[in-house]
Amino acid sequence: MRDLSRDLAHLSINTATVRKQLGLFDIIEACARRGIPTLCPWRDQVRAAGLAETARRLADAGLGTSGYCRGGFFPAADPAGLTAALEDNCAAIDEAKVLNAPCLVLVVGSLPGALAGNPLSKDIARARAQVYDGIAATLDYARGHAMPLAIEPLHPMQGAERSCINTLSHALDICDALDPDRTGALGVALDVYHTWWDPQLETQIKRAGRERLLAYHVCDWLVPTRDLLNDRGMMGDGIVELRKIRGWIEAAGYAGPAEVEIFSERWWATPAAEVLDVCARRYQTVV
Amino acid sequence: MRDLSRDLAHLSINTATVRKQLGLFDIIEACARRGIPTLCPWRDQVRAAGLAETARRLADAGLGTSGYCRGGFFPAADPAGLTAALEDNCAAIDEAKVLNAPCLVLVVGSLPGALAGNPLSKDIARARAQVYDGIAATLDYARGHAMPLAIEPLHPMQGAERSCINTLSHALDICDALDPDRTGALGVALDVYHTWWDPQLETQIKRAGRERLLAYHVCDWLVPTRDLLNDRGMMGDGIVELRKIRGWIEAAGYAGPAEVEIFSERWWATPAAEVLDVCARRYQTVV
Repeated sequence: MRDLSRDLAHLSINTATVRKQLGLFDIIEACARRGIPTLCPWRDQVRAAGLAETARRLADAGLGTSGYCRGGFFPAADPAGLTAALEDNCAAIDEAKVLNAPCLVLVVGSLPGALAGNPLSKDIARARAQVYDGIAATLDYARGHAMPLAIEPLHPMQGAERSCINTLSHALDICDALDPDRTGALGVALDVYHTWWDPQLETQIKRAGRERLLAYHVCDWLVPTRDLLNDRGMMGDGIVELRKIRGWIEAAGYAGPAEVEIFSERWWATPAAEVLDVCARRYQTVV
Repeated sequence: MRDLSRDLAHLSINTATVRKQLGLFDIIEACARRGIPTLCPWRDQVRAAGLAETARRLADAGLGTSGYCRGGFFPAADPAGLTAALEDNCAAIDEAKVLNAPCLVLVVGSLPGALAGNPLSKDIARARAQVYDGIAATLDYARGHAMPLAIEPLHPMQGAERSCINTLSHALDICDALDPDRTGALGVALDVYHTWWDPQLETQIKRAGRERLLAYHVCDWLVPTRDLLNDRGMMGDGIVELRKIRGWIEAAGYAGPAEVEIFSERWWATPAAEVLDVCARRYQTVV
């Protein structure tokens, strides 16, 4: 296993982690100042800051990206919605190229309307079929633009609103069907928060292998967890066996960044400088 | 599929559903008055009311049970804790016999200390090994007393505190290992709340078959869900495809009761008579 304690060479910050405290350019500057070499920007933050200017600021600061958050949300209640989702995913691929991202992370969506609190359907099998078709269609465009797609399985508690792909096994089934030659064009984003509970985690990480492991996200699972969305823990504050899981993904061939992605009311209420310092320290000591 | 709309013959009420409004004897009486033929009592409620007297009241009211809630919580931080858990499970089996329950439901436990908010370990593989050993030891006693054990997979969001068995597949792996002859001594309690999201649900229900399907619990998954424990929905208020799942379990041979088990601050704040009336109506119309 890599020794992460010596420097921050493999640390990335997902910009959602401090999104309520800082604008995107300030996040870039704060990371650069600390020697954090990589971040993963969110699409709405990039849109607010301007795509070309974001790319320029990243380059000027010497920062790379560990991914682009996010494409997906394929299911829809009607054909127009399905088409709009595909167009939006192609646009996200274009943006990811401008940012020189190594992959576009896909949060695939689930029951149409559910994210807005008004599910228009209960048919999760249909949502899954729409997701499959949506990834297939997007993959054509993504291959043409050399932008790998990383399916992120989300925790089953987010299975109605955000993602109907809730296990690594399910994500890899889709990868195997759509990219049987393991070309690197389609893989997964493995987030320990969403997957720590899975009794098949080690087996499926092995199955994924180097070609499919496109991104690796860390935070922690708090006991108790008080909110289904915004109560993620800082690494070391919860019960995820971070080092064990990193051992599995590195044994499978992953050599990319550990991306810290924390959605947390607590950490959003903490000064960004302190959050980033704690992220860096915990990365070096407990990840 | 059975037609549930005609009467309440296959309805059971898990007593947790109205536990904050009524004592156990009042729940028995309220169910009997409505023609609800079966309930599933919780152990702490039975203890508070008295075991022998509970059995007498059930018999006097002509009510049956769909299970006894609950054994389990096998993992512990030390050998004394492991032994105490086994003894407690044997006691639960004895109680279930007195109540003439068709099975003892097992919520197997997970990281020692986590339920109290103070996890003493992060080693979920170890917890799973302790659960396996605990079920194996309890099964010996259960066979001797002709009390089937029903492993209840809980939703992964409860995987740290309450159960490290979070998929039907995992539960069935344990059943197959410990009861390869499918004798009926070991099976599962299938709760739609915990399992609706599982892409393998239909397949694993088929795999379970009649011999393993010992209990079937219904409620609904609300969108959004606001609490990880006490925000279950009344059947029809959420996104679970209740009829589809019931079709799967009946096709697999299940012919027992549909047990309504709702942990919900909202429904606990509603008069018990109204809750039970709504349960009965929804059972007849949407389950």
